[in-house]
Amino acid sequence: MIPSACVRPGRLWDDLMALAAITDPARPYTRRSFSDRFLTGRDWLRARFAQAGLDCRIDDAGNLIGRRAGTRPGAGTLMAGSHSDSVPDGGRFDGMLGVLAALEAARALAESGLALDHDLEVVDFLAEEPSEFGLSCIGSRGLSGALSAGQRALVAPWGESLADAIARMGGDPARLDGPRRDDIRAFLELHIEQGTVLERAGRPIGVVQAIAGVTRVEIRFAGRADHAGTTPMDHRQDAAVAAAAIIGFVSERAGALAASGSGHVTATCGVVDIAPNAANVVPRAARLVVDIRVSHRPVLQTLLDALRAACDRAADRARVRLAAFTILSDSHPVACDPALAARIAAAADGLGLAHCAMVSGAGHDAAFVARLAPATMIFVPCRDGRSHDPAEWCAPDDAARGARVLADTMLACDRGP
Amino acid sequence: MIPSACVRPGRLWDDLMALAAITDPARPYTRRSFSDRFLTGRDWLRARFAQAGLDCRIDDAGNLIGRRAGTRPGAGTLMAGSHSDSVPDGGRFDGMLGVLAALEAARALAESGLALDHDLEVVDFLAEEPSEFGLSCIGSRGLSGALSAGQRALVAPWGESLADAIARMGGDPARLDGPRRDDIRAFLELHIEQGTVLERAGRPIGVVQAIAGVTRVEIRFAGRADHAGTTPMDHRQDAAVAAAAIIGFVSERAGALAASGSGHVTATCGVVDIAPNAANVVPRAARLVVDIRVSHRPVLQTLLDALRAACDRAADRARVRLAAFTILSDSHPVACDPALAARIAAAADGLGLAHCAMVSGAGHDAAFVARLAPATMIFVPCRDGRSHDPAEWCAPDDAARGARVLADTMLACDRGP
Repeated sequence: MIPSACVRPGRLWDDLMALAAITDPARPYTRRSFSDRFLTGRDWLRARFAQAGLDCRIDDAGNLIGRRAGTRPGAGTLMAGSHSDSVPDGGRFDGMLGVLAALEAARALAESGLALDHDLEVVDFLAEEPSEFGLSCIGSRGLSGALSAGQRALVAPWGESLADAIARMGGDPARLDGPRRDDIRAFLELHIEQGTVLERAGRPIGVVQAIAGVTRVEIRFAGRADHAGTTPMDHRQDAAVAAAAIIGFVSERAGALAASGSGHVTATCGVVDIAPNAANVVPRAARLVVDIRVSHRPVLQTLLDALRAACDRAADRARVRLAAFTILSDSHPVACDPALAARIAAAADGLGLAHCAMVSGAGHDAAFVARLAPATMIFVPCRDGRSHDPAEWCAPDDAARGARVLADTMLACDRGP
Repeated sequence: MIPSACVRPGRLWDDLMALAAITDPARPYTRRSFSDRFLTGRDWLRARFAQAGLDCRIDDAGNLIGRRAGTRPGAGTLMAGSHSDSVPDGGRFDGMLGVLAALEAARALAESGLALDHDLEVVDFLAEEPSEFGLSCIGSRGLSGALSAGQRALVAPWGESLADAIARMGGDPARLDGPRRDDIRAFLELHIEQGTVLERAGRPIGVVQAIAGVTRVEIRFAGRADHAGTTPMDHRQDAAVAAAAIIGFVSERAGALAASGSGHVTATCGVVDIAPNAANVVPRAARLVVDIRVSHRPVLQTLLDALRAACDRAADRARVRLAAFTILSDSHPVACDPALAARIAAAADGLGLAHCAMVSGAGHDAAFVARLAPATMIFVPCRDGRSHDPAEWCAPDDAARGARVLADTMLACDRGP
């Protein structure tokens, strides 16, 4: 029997709702990394892993791993999972679906009577969401050797270092100086899309080809505060006027690039701060933070060059000074493993599920795991694209379809060349 | 001898510096209306008025008035002055110059040996600057019957009603239901320009033809908060993009109107608030406050109609909703008395001082006095247009030139038809 036939949608759904019930009661759905609530969730997960016959451990990076040995020692590991921590006032599926669908796939594989050559691991990565340490994807960074000593020295508001917090979770932060694994043959992460592409296309499965890089640029314009009534229009140095031109430019240029077949391109001015922000004063200063995400790295440079030129033009026109054009952070796009993506597509085809190739605009643990192993993601629709919100919703059928594709893909990885 | 010949620049300057020295010591230059510091300033003013032979009183609206009777009873009153209160961290000239130059003109008129037919009054209006009651021009409103019962019931943060505060200043708030005077034949207010028109034109005297009306419009756009990475550009409802289009429109359209001979036109988006204002979230909401000032009322409607249409277009393009287009406040432009303006121009000509016709983009007490008497203003340059700032600066020569024009204009008003 193929594994997907043994996936039990009700069992998966019950697991999702049971984990969701472990939340700060006044604030559903909240299970922040490093908190007591998070550890309660992990205790529950560990028990469910054990019931499925998985051997549980915490790895050096603080990730919870449930393992079943394969029949061919040394064949390597097939890993699947995601994360169980949430943002405050978050949803029930972001991360949790990937962990619990991997658990369901492991159970289905066992119940199908098929023994895998490879070791199988279900993983709950530590602290994927932005934590109180100001960093995300802590567990997958640690696994792949991408958690620097400086990052491990970050301190939370309550005074604990990240290294100490990882140790408190059961990890060994002293051993995180390089990649922790060389045995992973494939990593698969099932996740809600957090967008509306699948929903609008009417397709239940997205096969992720790349995870976009995220580049954040801070732009500051310095003008002059003047009386809004007495300063003639042609003698103003209005920083908000320059900033407004850039907000418009960012939206238009990114829209044009996205429409012209440059892969995934989004750009957003999500932060807009004006000073002094008083009705009767011409704005003296304006600050923007532009969030740019591309799947093709050269597109980033094209967009940055155009943005910089637009800033110079906007400053000239508004008679203000471009006081800062600063890259705050910059992560490269990650290409997912094409062979792995092809296996997902084949598994969906085998189940008669329509699918489409996609780019993830959001960051995920898979982007770090891809540094040391073939990795990709399976997306399923979430209603209206809502995420990081209690209204986040993945229909039970969609969750089950994702788990089925995951289970069959894992078998294909085990059997395939 | 003409009165201007008796203006003593050093005496005027010493008065300006002496009044400026009465300030909250940690915060020059600060003498907020209704404060003990303000009353200390008034005590000093009252003494200086008395030394100049003026009879002092506080009128019903809490204005300090120094009066010298004319030789022809019933001829009416020539009034000059401004206000002695300041904004926090303000300057030494805004308001104070108008009061002290009027005092200097009164002294010069007396010393010139010319007796006036009319009564002469030097006035220090109460609370011209925005006060803790959320209202400006309180004394001139009271004088002209424009201080409503509702406004008199406003309460300061320390729990005192405006009526009680006016009484504490020596006024009689129960008597402010209508205009308090019918004897004023002319009102003249000397003031720093608070802009750079005179400085750039190289002219020492501005003759104010009108005081612009101020209309404030609140504009709100309602979009949808979405993930900045996963939401395609062509499916966003980005409220900041709509707001940015309006910031640009306001600047361009007001600039074009001002350049096309529509009188004084300024428009400013001084307040820009974006929500949630997070780098990774498409802005859900945007709020603008647009400050519009025109000297010709029909221009306001033209601009408001265009602004409304631009808001509808911007909302459509950004796929957001125009959630508010609200007039927060609206005051009409005030035309100054043309005959009085002509007397100022003639006085400047007589002194060989270049002058130009101007519109005041800022509000002033003169705009309220103009409701019950011929009124206008004389502007003098202030360095770099700075005002409401400790760097505010009026050169001693410019202050003296203004006082000379004021003195000669008062004589002309007394003698003229």
